[in-house]
Amino acid sequence: MDIATRVYNHKWKIDPIVRSLIDTDFYKLLMCQSVFRNKPDTQVTFSLINRSDKVPLARLIDEGELREQLDHIRSLSLSRGESTWLRGNTFYGKRQMFRPDFMEWFEGLRLPPYHLERRGDQYELTFEGAWHEVMLWEIPALAVLMELRSRAVLNDMGRFELQVLYARAMTKVWEKIERLRHVKGLSIADFGTRRRHSFLWQDWCVQAMMEGLGRSFTGTSNCLIAMRREVEAIGTNAHELPMVYSALAQDDAALAQAPYEVLSDWHEEHEGNLRIILPDTYGSKGFLDHAPDWLAGWTGIRVDSGDPATAAETAIRWWQDRGEDPRSKRVIFSDGLDVDKIAELHRQFSDRVTVSFGWGTLLTNDFRGLVPGDGLAPFSLVCKAVSANGRPTVKLSDNPEKAMGPAEEIARYKRVFGVGTQQSIEVIV
Amino acid sequence: MDIATRVYNHKWKIDPIVRSLIDTDFYKLLMCQSVFRNKPDTQVTFSLINRSDKVPLARLIDEGELREQLDHIRSLSLSRGESTWLRGNTFYGKRQMFRPDFMEWFEGLRLPPYHLERRGDQYELTFEGAWHEVMLWEIPALAVLMELRSRAVLNDMGRFELQVLYARAMTKVWEKIERLRHVKGLSIADFGTRRRHSFLWQDWCVQAMMEGLGRSFTGTSNCLIAMRREVEAIGTNAHELPMVYSALAQDDAALAQAPYEVLSDWHEEHEGNLRIILPDTYGSKGFLDHAPDWLAGWTGIRVDSGDPATAAETAIRWWQDRGEDPRSKRVIFSDGLDVDKIAELHRQFSDRVTVSFGWGTLLTNDFRGLVPGDGLAPFSLVCKAVSANGRPTVKLSDNPEKAMGPAEEIARYKRVFGVGTQQSIEVIV
Repeated sequence: MDIATRVYNHKWKIDPIVRSLIDTDFYKLLMCQSVFRNKPDTQVTFSLINRSDKVPLARLIDEGELREQLDHIRSLSLSRGESTWLRGNTFYGKRQMFRPDFMEWFEGLRLPPYHLERRGDQYELTFEGAWHEVMLWEIPALAVLMELRSRAVLNDMGRFELQVLYARAMTKVWEKIERLRHVKGLSIADFGTRRRHSFLWQDWCVQAMMEGLGRSFTGTSNCLIAMRREVEAIGTNAHELPMVYSALAQDDAALAQAPYEVLSDWHEEHEGNLRIILPDTYGSKGFLDHAPDWLAGWTGIRVDSGDPATAAETAIRWWQDRGEDPRSKRVIFSDGLDVDKIAELHRQFSDRVTVSFGWGTLLTNDFRGLVPGDGLAPFSLVCKAVSANGRPTVKLSDNPEKAMGPAEEIARYKRVFGVGTQQSIEVIV
Repeated sequence: MDIATRVYNHKWKIDPIVRSLIDTDFYKLLMCQSVFRNKPDTQVTFSLINRSDKVPLARLIDEGELREQLDHIRSLSLSRGESTWLRGNTFYGKRQMFRPDFMEWFEGLRLPPYHLERRGDQYELTFEGAWHEVMLWEIPALAVLMELRSRAVLNDMGRFELQVLYARAMTKVWEKIERLRHVKGLSIADFGTRRRHSFLWQDWCVQAMMEGLGRSFTGTSNCLIAMRREVEAIGTNAHELPMVYSALAQDDAALAQAPYEVLSDWHEEHEGNLRIILPDTYGSKGFLDHAPDWLAGWTGIRVDSGDPATAAETAIRWWQDRGEDPRSKRVIFSDGLDVDKIAELHRQFSDRVTVSFGWGTLLTNDFRGLVPGDGLAPFSLVCKAVSANGRPTVKLSDNPEKAMGPAEEIARYKRVFGVGTQQSIEVIV
């Protein structure tokens, strides 16, 4: 390393984890633009939720360091090159995906304040403000917590011990890639930003996928990595849209329509591969049963909870019932995937629909079994909209382990959306 | 990487494998000094011998590249820092191990010419000239051939495929180190220069041993790495001394004495831990039976062929017969070692003698099973003195697979040294 680089590195007071506002998932920016246009006045609260309370984040991560990282993120603004890329790049075959008014706003954005408090062995971390600003905290907040936890565990290791740890992790990822090479016609993207081991590690995984899988690797959800590695930025929309729209509904009738209102707004803005239904927020079955006909014309469905094969079968039947040819439709699997499941689902569905995979935590953070006590195993940390304009949000999901919201509201949503008994599936990541 | 470094690297016409005259085994320099004093007029021929004729070196390695590497070695001379280190460093607790007259000669040395010719799928590579000059070709010649062969195999691999290959190799070495950590009182050194996968790889292995084994790692035979990593340079003497001394013997009576004459010269020059007997050149049993009493006072024995436990038992009995306490003696095992054997020998002998290990090829070149067709597996390449002053050299060894020399001379040596039937043991590395 040359002297200048070394001195430059020493100038950092901290080693920042998130160094760019576009070190985030692409769908966040798409949703942000949609919210910026359709719900600019909505006030929300996002909150960190550690579903794995056996991981004592506040004991592992120093509060001062956490504040420094979060403060650093608040100092970030869109760089000229990042702005040029967002304005000039082709996303999903379309130029000028981001409108000039949105870009102008985004160029001036700094992330709003955060609220951090230690509660026992966990941190309470919340963000309040305009929806389109607060929502951009989700991914960097998660990435910072995940990486600070990695650093805490790595801190006591020797230089060669560390090198061998990464050697083992690389071998693990590469062996997965080698197995996926044998899956003919595979189409898979990296969705692992939020719960990655670290930024550099995600970047390594993406490059390994590029070399190892060639055209079967379709891109990454991470905008910064997509820009730097010149691959596609991948993503459409997420649960936060129906959750906030639903929280804003004035009565049960409006609530029942809210998830469709979201997609109606989306329908106006996007076409083709960006028209992907995420049906599970309040139960996939009821959502599809009551869906308006125009939704059946959308390009595909993303399966993000419950048993994935069951969900895909439900979608296929639904398309058939609505007179659509499933073979022209896309099913994107994105929940807790690893190679076995990917190969199995591909085998099961690839000749009936167009299958693709969004591979997350077990791509970018599979450090299971690599240190004593499994201190680097990934865990289920989320950062969600918990209220909108003062009203609580609710998620039911197809897996009750992923549900959230106050009990009485959950009961109300279940009634409104006709959700009965659900099957519980352990959430690993 | 900074621009200057990149440009500098581009200035090399080749990527030199051996970049220093002290990128060689320490015992070579000790023996060189001894020969420089005691046998300065001896003319020898050293020759490359590939014991693994299934590895078609001439098909794998381009002759032009091999010549470039060998020519580069001929352009090397001792640097000021290297000379300072040899003159100023403490070796085996002794200052000024290398005499001023030797150092002055060494500072002016360039290696003598080589003779290279392709013979079928193998190379004939020989070196002729003064013994103390030619002998310094052995290690760099072997290291160049080993590394060119590695490069040939690695040439078609992608960047991440390569990274994962090294990740796997690192994991393999580290797992060995982790196992050796549990061997209490272990004392082990790196002897892997000549058949290393590459220079950088050996350097990595040494550093991993330093971190992983702490004080159980006693040093490396490689002088350049010992200097750079500030660890002990390890080594004493080798078969070439008795082989050349014996070839010079005028008759059978002189021949019978030659191996002891070697050690008599050595005795005058060295003390303590450098007084290590290498008894197997013409059969350990006969050597010890006929050894003069003063040899029993030496510090230890190096076991380099045959069944190591048998050899150690023979040595222990010999010391007892000569009234020496084996517990004050050192046994150095250095033949074809890997972790299982190391742990087993340590368990067997560590409470009866002082045990230490010189770990070679399976430390610095265990790439077995890491590429298809096992193209990176180590193989048994040697570079030996084949004649001295026009007379052929002979080695019998405790393992007839390692014997060398013309058949009639082998018969004569067997008769002179009283060597009967020997047990054959497969030579892996």
